[in-house]
Amino acid sequence: MSTAQSPTPRRRGRPRKNEAADTRTHIVTAAHDEFMAKGFDAASIRGIARAAGVDPSLVHHYFADKSDLLAASLDLPMRPDVELPRILATPPAERAATLVRFILTVWDDPVVQKRGMLLLRSASGQGLVSRLIRDFVVREIFARVAASIDADDAELRAQLVATQIVGLIVLRFGLRVEPLASADVEEIVRRVAPGLSVHLIGPAEA
Amino acid sequence: MSTAQSPTPRRRGRPRKNEAADTRTHIVTAAHDEFMAKGFDAASIRGIARAAGVDPSLVHHYFADKSDLLAASLDLPMRPDVELPRILATPPAERAATLVRFILTVWDDPVVQKRGMLLLRSASGQGLVSRLIRDFVVREIFARVAASIDADDAELRAQLVATQIVGLIVLRFGLRVEPLASADVEEIVRRVAPGLSVHLIGPAEA
Repeated sequence: MSTAQSPTPRRRGRPRKNEAADTRTHIVTAAHDEFMAKGFDAASIRGIARAAGVDPSLVHHYFADKSDLLAASLDLPMRPDVELPRILATPPAERAATLVRFILTVWDDPVVQKRGMLLLRSASGQGLVSRLIRDFVVREIFARVAASIDADDAELRAQLVATQIVGLIVLRFGLRVEPLASADVEEIVRRVAPGLSVHLIGPAEA
Repeated sequence: MSTAQSPTPRRRGRPRKNEAADTRTHIVTAAHDEFMAKGFDAASIRGIARAAGVDPSLVHHYFADKSDLLAASLDLPMRPDVELPRILATPPAERAATLVRFILTVWDDPVVQKRGMLLLRSASGQGLVSRLIRDFVVREIFARVAASIDADDAELRAQLVATQIVGLIVLRFGLRVEPLASADVEEIVRRVAPGLSVHLIGPAEA
């Protein structure tokens, strides 16, 4: 998403737009370095602004918060952290189905698939990027799902939900095994959501 | 598993053992080339023997069947195709639990984890090795699971089982997210098996 403006036609008399794109790119690069050096928790908007040589207000002009900056610096093809609150706000009985439907629909986009599979591979590595991706996933995805679950073991439940989602992504979009790869979205939702609901809804309905 | 004999002490007067290891390695290399060139289906023990310049009976001396040869040429750290019949022969009510318990226990071995994650990454690629791994998985794993399911949609069910298993492997052994990575095996079995059973047992119990 950080490079979305690249095919801009080169015209004279429109320097401000390019300048803005440059500034944004410059901030994203500084953010990337800062996240790598300090990790997600210790990095700050203020420190990123300093590294980019701009005022913090300019960073806030382009990016809503630190997660937004991280998403740009990891070049995330979608924003699970932004979409999740909407999904988790649906009635408990529909929540698992809404989640599975959302994932399968969003990953249908080839850009999401390509970049997403790369990120998934990177996440299982050992380096700084791997840790950064895992930090983001644990803090911005798992923690949100866990917060929606009214149970002592909410964290484990959130991660068990993730196992089903990740497995679906790997087999449907990564390995593309048939008949799963071509199966109707609603067919998969119908089969997988009940099992997920047990983890996702918490003890009352389990 | 094909290179397990490498740290053999070099002594005089024991040429037969090394010779045997060399012959085996030679056959595995020929098998690898043959599988790459022709795929799993079209490759044959006879063709592999010819490529290795040995009699087919010698290939059969070292390898039980074509799957055994493929497992050696992919350097599989475990043999899901060999273990599956035992797992699938357990009573239906215990089958999902036995499967999850087996996977989590076997993957506890660091060698299985390291080699297994590499194979999982390779499988989602585009090249000949990727296709070979997928062929093996589809034919030797999914097909066996599907054959054990008494339902018209047995293939899809087998792959949905696989999504849960692969997701567990990725998050517990690849990303190592906590608390999932350290959770007790039986705790995970207890939580995941009921959902798997719905796919695995077929329509009667579904």
